[in-house]
Amino acid sequence: MLISRFIAVRKRTEWIAAPLNIEDYVVQPVEYVSPPKWHLGHTTWFFETFILKPNLNGYREFDPNYNYIFNSYYETVGARVIRTDRGNLSRPSVEDIYRYRKHVDEAMAALLSSPSGLTEDLRDTVILGLNHEEQHQELLFSDMKYILGHNPLFPPYRLQMNKVKIIYNEKWDYLTMDEGIYEIGHKGKGFCFDNELGRHKVYLQEYQLSRNLVTNAEYMEFIDAGGYTDFRYWHAEGWEWVNREKINAPMYWHLVDGVWHTYSMDGLVPVELSTPVVHVSYYEAHAYAEWKNERLPTEFEWEAASPQLLYGKRWEWTENAYLPYPGFTRAAGALGEYNGKFMVNQMVLRGWSTFTSPGHSRHTYRNFFHPHLRWQFTGIRLAR
Amino acid sequence: MLISRFIAVRKRTEWIAAPLNIEDYVVQPVEYVSPPKWHLGHTTWFFETFILKPNLNGYREFDPNYNYIFNSYYETVGARVIRTDRGNLSRPSVEDIYRYRKHVDEAMAALLSSPSGLTEDLRDTVILGLNHEEQHQELLFSDMKYILGHNPLFPPYRLQMNKVKIIYNEKWDYLTMDEGIYEIGHKGKGFCFDNELGRHKVYLQEYQLSRNLVTNAEYMEFIDAGGYTDFRYWHAEGWEWVNREKINAPMYWHLVDGVWHTYSMDGLVPVELSTPVVHVSYYEAHAYAEWKNERLPTEFEWEAASPQLLYGKRWEWTENAYLPYPGFTRAAGALGEYNGKFMVNQMVLRGWSTFTSPGHSRHTYRNFFHPHLRWQFTGIRLAR
Amino acid sequence: MLISRFIAVRKRTEWIAAPLNIEDYVVQPVEYVSPPKWHLGHTTWFFETFILKPNLNGYREFDPNYNYIFNSYYETVGARVIRTDRGNLSRPSVEDIYRYRKHVDEAMAALLSSPSGLTEDLRDTVILGLNHEEQHQELLFSDMKYILGHNPLFPPYRLQMNKVKIIYNEKWDYLTMDEGIYEIGHKGKGFCFDNELGRHKVYLQEYQLSRNLVTNAEYMEFIDAGGYTDFRYWHAEGWEWVNREKINAPMYWHLVDGVWHTYSMDGLVPVELSTPVVHVSYYEAHAYAEWKNERLPTEFEWEAASPQLLYGKRWEWTENAYLPYPGFTRAAGALGEYNGKFMVNQMVLRGWSTFTSPGHSRHTYRNFFHPHLRWQFTGIRLAR
Amino acid sequence: MLISRFIAVRKRTEWIAAPLNIEDYVVQPVEYVSPPKWHLGHTTWFFETFILKPNLNGYREFDPNYNYIFNSYYETVGARVIRTDRGNLSRPSVEDIYRYRKHVDEAMAALLSSPSGLTEDLRDTVILGLNHEEQHQELLFSDMKYILGHNPLFPPYRLQMNKVKIIYNEKWDYLTMDEGIYEIGHKGKGFCFDNELGRHKVYLQEYQLSRNLVTNAEYMEFIDAGGYTDFRYWHAEGWEWVNREKINAPMYWHLVDGVWHTYSMDGLVPVELSTPVVHVSYYEAHAYAEWKNERLPTEFEWEAASPQLLYGKRWEWTENAYLPYPGFTRAAGALGEYNGKFMVNQMVLRGWSTFTSPGHSRHTYRNFFHPHLRWQFTGIRLAR
Repeated sequence: MLISRFIAVRKRTEWIAAPLNIEDYVVQPVEYVSPPKWHLGHTTWFFETFILKPNLNGYREFDPNYNYIFNSYYETVGARVIRTDRGNLSRPSVEDIYRYRKHVDEAMAALLSSPSGLTEDLRDTVILGLNHEEQHQELLFSDMKYILGHNPLFPPYRLQMNKVKIIYNEKWDYLTMDEGIYEIGHKGKGFCFDNELGRHKVYLQEYQLSRNLVTNAEYMEFIDAGGYTDFRYWHAEGWEWVNREKINAPMYWHLVDGVWHTYSMDGLVPVELSTPVVHVSYYEAHAYAEWKNERLPTEFEWEAASPQLLYGKRWEWTENAYLPYPGFTRAAGALGEYNGKFMVNQMVLRGWSTFTSPGHSRHTYRNFFHPHLRWQFTGIRLAR
Repeated sequence: MLISRFIAVRKRTEWIAAPLNIEDYVVQPVEYVSPPKWHLGHTTWFFETFILKPNLNGYREFDPNYNYIFNSYYETVGARVIRTDRGNLSRPSVEDIYRYRKHVDEAMAALLSSPSGLTEDLRDTVILGLNHEEQHQELLFSDMKYILGHNPLFPPYRLQMNKVKIIYNEKWDYLTMDEGIYEIGHKGKGFCFDNELGRHKVYLQEYQLSRNLVTNAEYMEFIDAGGYTDFRYWHAEGWEWVNREKINAPMYWHLVDGVWHTYSMDGLVPVELSTPVVHVSYYEAHAYAEWKNERLPTEFEWEAASPQLLYGKRWEWTENAYLPYPGFTRAAGALGEYNGKFMVNQMVLRGWSTFTSPGHSRHTYRNFFHPHLRWQFTGIRLAR
Repeated sequence: MLISRFIAVRKRTEWIAAPLNIEDYVVQPVEYVSPPKWHLGHTTWFFETFILKPNLNGYREFDPNYNYIFNSYYETVGARVIRTDRGNLSRPSVEDIYRYRKHVDEAMAALLSSPSGLTEDLRDTVILGLNHEEQHQELLFSDMKYILGHNPLFPPYRLQMNKVKIIYNEKWDYLTMDEGIYEIGHKGKGFCFDNELGRHKVYLQEYQLSRNLVTNAEYMEFIDAGGYTDFRYWHAEGWEWVNREKINAPMYWHLVDGVWHTYSMDGLVPVELSTPVVHVSYYEAHAYAEWKNERLPTEFEWEAASPQLLYGKRWEWTENAYLPYPGFTRAAGALGEYNGKFMVNQMVLRGWSTFTSPGHSRHTYRNFFHPHLRWQFTGIRLAR
Repeated sequence: MLISRFIAVRKRTEWIAAPLNIEDYVVQPVEYVSPPKWHLGHTTWFFETFILKPNLNGYREFDPNYNYIFNSYYETVGARVIRTDRGNLSRPSVEDIYRYRKHVDEAMAALLSSPSGLTEDLRDTVILGLNHEEQHQELLFSDMKYILGHNPLFPPYRLQMNKVKIIYNEKWDYLTMDEGIYEIGHKGKGFCFDNELGRHKVYLQEYQLSRNLVTNAEYMEFIDAGGYTDFRYWHAEGWEWVNREKINAPMYWHLVDGVWHTYSMDGLVPVELSTPVVHVSYYEAHAYAEWKNERLPTEFEWEAASPQLLYGKRWEWTENAYLPYPGFTRAAGALGEYNGKFMVNQMVLRGWSTFTSPGHSRHTYRNFFHPHLRWQFTGIRLAR
């Protein structure tokens, strides 16, 4: 039932935010981190704008100003708030935003339980809205971690999650894949984003993928070997980034009395050696691979091998820029802006992470970020 | 009694902040506006650092991290938070800061009511701390106004104040002051800041000061006459500022259906014609005077004439840069940083404003801001 | 004979620079344009550093400071001049740099005519040096055009070149290519850059490529249709670029009395309608294609179809980010930095332009620039 | 005779520039340094614009584009070149600019020798133009020094000047001046700038001025005592400047094998101990005085004492911001922009330097620069 899925997804967002103080909802420490309250409002705005206003007879808009405040990149719909300004808006209050959510949820419940049912188009838009909210759920995790993890008090964010336990296995080796033609892209009738469509053949040379992700212990070897101070491992722009930003370890790592610590959801703790490294940029992932005399997988290699890989703890950087598949076309209207407009200057990540919403992952999923960003739950898999 | 004054000043800060939402305490929309919660913490930190820790036996520091978080410019005391980072700190929470205030206030009450009394030095430091907090009370008003007045919802800040009513009087003319020697600077035993000390003689030529401040109606004439588009009235740096920042009216003014409105403490309201103009920069004050073929007063002209002026609604820009008086010396220790280190690139303002704390004003008071800033309650008086 | 090719390439660089005033050699109007004198010195430094100093017995270095001044990105060899500082260096003089060229050319002539001959490695490095200089020859053209074309006097740069005449042909249609496996990458024993190596199979879906490049007349239709003011055709970052930089036409275009003019090597002249459009960024190329409901070719589509295309007037933007081929490996030592370190955030261009040095072009050639740059001789081919 | 003075001043400019390479005329290493060729053109443009075009019958403008290129701050006259763009203009060529000078000089000679003579107004404008050119002569020295002194080759600028020799005298002490009324400002019929006019009385407290300027040896003591690393001596903005720009010595000083060297007009040479320190900012001058527990003079103290001071080797920073004298009025028309528009955010310097043009100095002269600038020939005198 769509309505029960709707309720579950919407509740999960609020469950994620529950441990926050009101103050935590408001701040925007850097341009690419959004205030948590914005995520709560923006995901709600999606349903109000694309579903309720055009489709629910007699729907009363909660507040016309919210369109301006919670619009993201949908240029078709109206002027959007300049991104860097989000952290300046103390109003609407967190309480108002929860009232907004309630208002929209009740109207959605009415619509979704209407006896006449929904058109298939409308159903698809609701499902897109839920997937959109699930994307923001993971962003909510990473943004909260940034906000609390860059506070000098290192306050823990206490949330009980069932953690997927994936053990690094020293005996595991590299998986070898044969040269040949593989099919890439989404198949079947389930939901996917527009950027996964256009299933098509690619030709791959023989290749090998590590079954394990790179661990913290392995990454420390790179640090100890001077990886951050030897330009030979880095892209020219990566090297400038390392020097300009004074990068010498993954994000959240602090050397305390000679021991690497990291900010985790429980506060500042020693780095666990056997855990996959997380919060590295594409530049760092690439430099690590260069130092090992290996390389990162392409997204096609990854997808073709994925049934035989163990993954799901970290988003994995690939050696691919984010580009359209052959035959990529944008949806008509405002939703057509969903993915295509970001297909420049970003790198593809595959897999999913501990913080990806349940049911939101697919082995054809194409995540993407700029190569210098590392506040997402990003890790490294090697290829040969 | 010092203790009752202490309690009154500390309470007034909290009374000013009372109408705020928790969210409003946190944001920092521009570098020169501090989050309200920072003002509440920083003024408290002053008493803890300069009075309680060195003087109250057995005083327990509330939280050692707070020294780092709430330090302002006192380089002697320790590393300070980079100013632009203040708006990123969601913790300590507002509740924690009020607990911090309570903790310090109780310890201060104990100290101030100690039967042995205070040394004169200590007494002076307490009084300096109270004057320091009163300065931050006015900053609290102007920062809150900035935060709420730059929110697209224009939320009112509801606080009942007894407003000083000063009427513009068309019949009033210019006051003429004789050429001669005048004495400038603080006299007597009451409190003053270090920058007012060193009473000394200055020689003034004959001059005239307007008894009235420039009103909104008069300032609109400047706008209508193209004042913002004619470089001849502006300093070169002021002209660059006008063009770079696209300035065409005082801060908070918005043209709504052809009528000038302004954000006030009650929300967006039409501009009152007979009220003194407020929220103009030194550049604008100077350009207005040029356009009128007059000039701004010097701070010495202002002080010499002040007994015959009606003032107290607006801080008044003068034609003086903020420089030391002859014989200016800095206090020893950390408090010596109080004023001297800002004596470059800023302009002096005289008088006081509607939002200046009661009892905090003196006709020898030297306020100072950079010439492009206008979020303070700044107005214009003309001289010839 | 290598020596005669050496002499010819070196002379051609000086022939290109011959029409310049001494003043023109010195300026650097933007960070990505190098002063012409730097190109003359840097290409010479390559031969001195990688060939003469390690291989010519008794070679006397011209000036040890030049290593610092004319180094480019070769981090292995030594500290390099910060790029944006190049335009500040009035010394060494242009005359000194020509003396430097002469000094190195004489030593190279001695080496190249040595009776014992060259090792194959050394020979390869000389050939790489010549290809390196040919790359800078085209940069010299585009940098000179930028310098003179952004001068308010629009001085012509008079050089007689035999212009390749390629006629736009209205009857030409789209070339259709079959789905299937194609081989990509350099084949054979001739010179190529490291980024072309690793010939490999790719699988392409059926596709069509326009035989003609987009003309100025066609591009004007895009302008007239409001292409620069409709965000729907643009990448999000392209749209920010258009707005931030106030872009409304190709670089060098000026609307004079309602007629589009362009700065050409002969000064400011009316835009020729039937000529392929030039000096567009990837963002513009992509937006044009979106507006036509078509797309840009991939670099593999381009290479596979190239024997049947007419090209060679413009570098053609492709829909590919610049990434390593399977099996890409860097050369050992300083020359290993040649290409790999730039494989992020840049887009591939294929073909060549009117200003590419003779003999320097290959249909496997991979040129690359950032998507916002357009001072190169870049044009548009459409695909379906 | 005005004509012979005209010829002498114009020739002196070219004599100063004579040792330059053509390349040296073109570069602009930082925004506040102008390319030498711009000085040559701009001073000529002054005579063409304000004298020849309105007054010489039949005068033929050399090139209408030059008004745009060589305009400085005279907003009344037309659009001016954005300052930071000056270093991008390779044309007009240096040769063209010398032809421009010749063209204007011949026309000026015709005008100045006209039998009917000049009106007094016109005569005054010519004299202003000559003083304007003399100001640019000193800027030409300081800009050339910056250009050559920031080149890694440290090329000497060889010009034979008769150097004024002023000896530091250890026995000299402080001059004491009585409290009382002094007259300040220009007196008499000779030329002065508008900012010196309005002779008026000031009241000064008793004060003492050092007869000697601070020497390099004395300044080294400040460095050795950690003056650049102790915030207590610095303005808050000065301290930010020191840290942001990594300042640890006067401009042009380099520690070579443990010995302070400085770039001089003869290249890199050891710092002379007994010479007055030069190329310090106001921030440094102020910090030095703080460290000595003294202060800088005010401009009024300086002017009142000047007949008893030995000066003329360095421009001397005062403790005064650059503000208008009582009764300051701007001239009508474009020339009215000469000084008034800069009267904000700058500090006054008094005296003159070794490189000030002969006859250009007055003890009422008010020079001014921003407090962080130090490429002028600026030094330190102490006051008490």
